[in-house]
Amino acid sequence: MTRTSLDHHNCSFARTVDIIGDRWSLMIVRDAFYGVRRFSEFKERLGVTQAVLSSRLGRLVDHGLLIKEPPGVGGRGEYRLTGKGRALFPAMVALMQWGDRFIHDDVGAPIVINDHRTGQSVDPLRVTAGGEPVSLPDLAFTLGPGASESTRDAFGRLQNQKIVDPRGA
Amino acid sequence: MTRTSLDHHNCSFARTVDIIGDRWSLMIVRDAFYGVRRFSEFKERLGVTQAVLSSRLGRLVDHGLLIKEPPGVGGRGEYRLTGKGRALFPAMVALMQWGDRFIHDDVGAPIVINDHRTGQSVDPLRVTAGGEPVSLPDLAFTLGPGASESTRDAFGRLQNQKIVDPRGA
Repeated sequence: MTRTSLDHHNCSFARTVDIIGDRWSLMIVRDAFYGVRRFSEFKERLGVTQAVLSSRLGRLVDHGLLIKEPPGVGGRGEYRLTGKGRALFPAMVALMQWGDRFIHDDVGAPIVINDHRTGQSVDPLRVTAGGEPVSLPDLAFTLGPGASESTRDAFGRLQNQKIVDPRGA
Repeated sequence: MTRTSLDHHNCSFARTVDIIGDRWSLMIVRDAFYGVRRFSEFKERLGVTQAVLSSRLGRLVDHGLLIKEPPGVGGRGEYRLTGKGRALFPAMVALMQWGDRFIHDDVGAPIVINDHRTGQSVDPLRVTAGGEPVSLPDLAFTLGPGASESTRDAFGRLQNQKIVDPRGA
């Protein structure tokens, strides 16, 4: 597969997608949150080829989402999420909750995330502004301090900067 | 590219990744939130080939994230997010915020999302349980009502079901 890099984009979403926006990287990060550490365990759980797994793990290490710990005596190195990797947790939860709602709604979630101190499951993630819930029609994209000239230009050519057209289906 | 389907997985995350877990689908959904509607506009903004764009848009329509509206007189059909597509908003915000924090932290976010009534920008997404903030070491994965036999089996073989090992880097 020819891979088109998005790393030149002046967009936090595109740059994030450039690093983890493929099925195997996302599944590796999921499994790392599950506590998977060893190459062989990722391989068995994901059913991915050695070459693909090796390339994706290497990329996640290069970008600082995982560290590879040196092997112990006779052992093999283990992969662990760094703080940068763990910071993907809200995104992972949001993707999982979307699937719970739209794919597994009939039978219930296969896996639930609980606070083990209280047994309470995590709440659906909601977007807020100033601590108050906001609905999509109230939100708009605006240019931020890091916007490049090309972003300003492309942004100006958008038909509207409202986040979704309220006429949407 | 040979595409390995994840749609047999008994996992909301894997099933979601199966639908949108590739760079172009994610970028198309981003642009749809930006208000992009026309095939030609997606193509120009993303720099993607006609064939890839057509296949990804078709898949997003098939899975009910976009609808293609019938063309008006002499016009072309436009793609709009459905409710199911718009429900990806928290996940998109979470991915964008991760990039803001880890990629564009030095120069500031290129694009900011504001409540246009108040001008306040959206808050960082936080995972809560019972309305209270929770930190990763307090969370655990548990089997839910929709867990299949194979999920129960694979889950039992995990070394631990804590979400991250507090020893993590």
